Amino acid sequence: MILPLAFLAGSGVDQLALQMLLVFGAAKLLAELAERVRMPGIVGGLLSGILLGPSLLNLIQYNDLLHALAELGVMFLLFQVGLEVKVSELLRVGKTALLVAVSGVLVPFVMGYAIYIGAKHPQAEALFMGAAMVATSVGITAQVLSSKGLLEHRTAKIILGAAIIDDVLGLLVLAVVSSMGEGKGIDYTGLLTTTVVSIGFVVAIAKYGTDAARIVVPKLAERMRVPESEYAIAVTFLFGMALLASVSGVAAIVGAFLAGMALAEIASKRLHTLVHGAGELMVPFFLASIGLQLDIHAFASGSSLAMGIAILIAAVNSKALGCGAAAWRLGWKDAARIGIGMVPRGEVGMVIAQIGISRGAIGQEAYGVAVFMAVMTTVVAPPLLNLVYKDIAKPAADVPPDEAPLHLG
Amino acid sequence: MILPLAFLAGSGVDQLALQMLLVFGAAKLLAELAERVRMPGIVGGLLSGILLGPSLLNLIQYNDLLHALAELGVMFLLFQVGLEVKVSELLRVGKTALLVAVSGVLVPFVMGYAIYIGAKHPQAEALFMGAAMVATSVGITAQVLSSKGLLEHRTAKIILGAAIIDDVLGLLVLAVVSSMGEGKGIDYTGLLTTTVVSIGFVVAIAKYGTDAARIVVPKLAERMRVPESEYAIAVTFLFGMALLASVSGVAAIVGAFLAGMALAEIASKRLHTLVHGAGELMVPFFLASIGLQLDIHAFASGSSLAMGIAILIAAVNSKALGCGAAAWRLGWKDAARIGIGMVPRGEVGMVIAQIGISRGAIGQEAYGVAVFMAVMTTVVAPPLLNLVYKDIAKPAADVPPDEAPLHLG
Repeated sequence: MILPLAFLAGSGVDQLALQMLLVFGAAKLLAELAERVRMPGIVGGLLSGILLGPSLLNLIQYNDLLHALAELGVMFLLFQVGLEVKVSELLRVGKTALLVAVSGVLVPFVMGYAIYIGAKHPQAEALFMGAAMVATSVGITAQVLSSKGLLEHRTAKIILGAAIIDDVLGLLVLAVVSSMGEGKGIDYTGLLTTTVVSIGFVVAIAKYGTDAARIVVPKLAERMRVPESEYAIAVTFLFGMALLASVSGVAAIVGAFLAGMALAEIASKRLHTLVHGAGELMVPFFLASIGLQLDIHAFASGSSLAMGIAILIAAVNSKALGCGAAAWRLGWKDAARIGIGMVPRGEVGMVIAQIGISRGAIGQEAYGVAVFMAVMTTVVAPPLLNLVYKDIAKPAADVPPDEAPLHLG
Repeated sequence: MILPLAFLAGSGVDQLALQMLLVFGAAKLLAELAERVRMPGIVGGLLSGILLGPSLLNLIQYNDLLHALAELGVMFLLFQVGLEVKVSELLRVGKTALLVAVSGVLVPFVMGYAIYIGAKHPQAEALFMGAAMVATSVGITAQVLSSKGLLEHRTAKIILGAAIIDDVLGLLVLAVVSSMGEGKGIDYTGLLTTTVVSIGFVVAIAKYGTDAARIVVPKLAERMRVPESEYAIAVTFLFGMALLASVSGVAAIVGAFLAGMALAEIASKRLHTLVHGAGELMVPFFLASIGLQLDIHAFASGSSLAMGIAILIAAVNSKALGCGAAAWRLGWKDAARIGIGMVPRGEVGMVIAQIGISRGAIGQEAYGVAVFMAVMTTVVAPPLLNLVYKDIAKPAADVPPDEAPLHLG
């Protein structure tokens, strides 16, 4: 397969079309193969990145364009998920979600820190490894649940709510860890400001977004003369909220989710389908990008592989147990669902590892371990989710085509 | 407006969301304003690039990401247009389209060359200016016609057919001009190979694509277990054809158009809407990218402005008259429609100017003139098209929402 592609590096060849074909085609092909062996299609998308990237075929380098498409993919994914979730339902599970988030931050952080300190690594590295294990990549779980038509289930709401709170907590952990790792004192005023601004943003949009949208959007859409005005407003709102979220300190995808949620009660069927068309195109890039950033050759030595596996096991169990325990009063089944739903670290864990290596707080080996943990938690979670949700998954055939759940695998 | 945006250059700000919001939001806002003064919305999209770019506010630099989104936008635009066109109808107007294309290449080339030689510019520059005036940016016209529901009209078919032939002819002109500009002999064997391969590709896909798609796609889509399998197949096919087109020597968007046309007879309504969702998101980037590449400050001297206007007038008239004359037997109304429809040079004219400047064949001033001509032909064409199609445009209200024509403005 390498030979014919070397020929494609020639000058007349559209490199954009080549990259789009390779990533999109491989992601869909592997998703199909995954479905045929009764794995979630999303696993195929994740594996396509590992296949195309430096770990195996080395056909494609992770680059700025793929990164941007991946970011757009996860923004549209969370926006779509938001469109399916009413804010009132999310607020109803707020307390449980808060408990799940806090416990799901503490247990993984302590475990990651303890393993690295126990293995006699520097304290800065142990702090960053703990922080990387705190992250939650809600996109993966949201995708699996929406493809099963399960976003209505209370566990889905708790997972989404906890993931948003997690994002704020993760921000604080990262800030603390960064100052401690650099031997500096903690800037309490800065921390407080960040906390207040980010929580304020989330609460304000969650609380008033739906009402504001209900008043403004339908009238505006009707008065506008541009065709597909509802879609134009929705996409502008999506990017505006993503931008505001990042300004206020939380992740852009949290803004995308809040934007979707604000529109959930007024979005037309056509808007759903149009957003779905953009999402289906770009989500495979989000999935592939996670695997593309893994280089399995980082585990040349047996000791780093052993550490990677130890951290992976700790990462899966600490989230599953930490979050599951916090939701124990919902019964062990729902507790297990929530615990597993919070396992994927994905792109969020990798961003923290990248911050760590760029500041010199962690070395190449710890970076490799963190990326391995982030990728593999993301690969193992969907099959586990399949298992714990098996008895309540709606068969897709029951859903009429126009109301089909979000299928983005 | 500059001040608050300077603040947004800070580290916590998601630069992707910022760029997406600025370009998408401005394009839609100006499209709305354009519609309100009875101009085509597409003009607003084009002007948004001039507004945001170095010519006016200088808020945004044209960069690799915007370029990639623009390319994706025009690929999806032509793919959508292809989905509306049956190949048999295109072949029926083949001879007229060939005449239109040939005449539309010769007249502009000779005019551009003559003006530059007359103004005592070097021969290499005159050759490149002629070549830049040969290009046709079919995306702009296709967009205007599809938003009016006029893709069924015979003039639309002739414009589309002529634009594809134009692409092959433009390729040959560029090859000849490049060798002459460098004082080298013309490589006749290479030219012949390019011609045969590119024509062979277009003819093969046009002739056998529809039948092949009819046999393969529905069965494949039905057997696949991945959700939205029809869309997954269509998008993969789109990028595959775009890639093959570029390998065989023609533009990627010609491949995208042929891919759409091959699927025209079997595409479901849902496929149309999903493709539309991706297109609506990215087409504004295509439109804005054209204006973003113009720097009006290049016309600091009166003489270069005068030359720009002279070339612009020649560019509009040479295509309108050259193509109109070739379609004269259809009556003066349709001849005028076809002539005006071929006027926009857009991104294709700019690519040729870029090749010219990168090879040292043209200077900064001639480059500025060519870009000005490419942008302004694109801005003036849509209102002129509004005018010549006024008496046959379908009112949008007659079209049921799900069969609404492609609105991408």
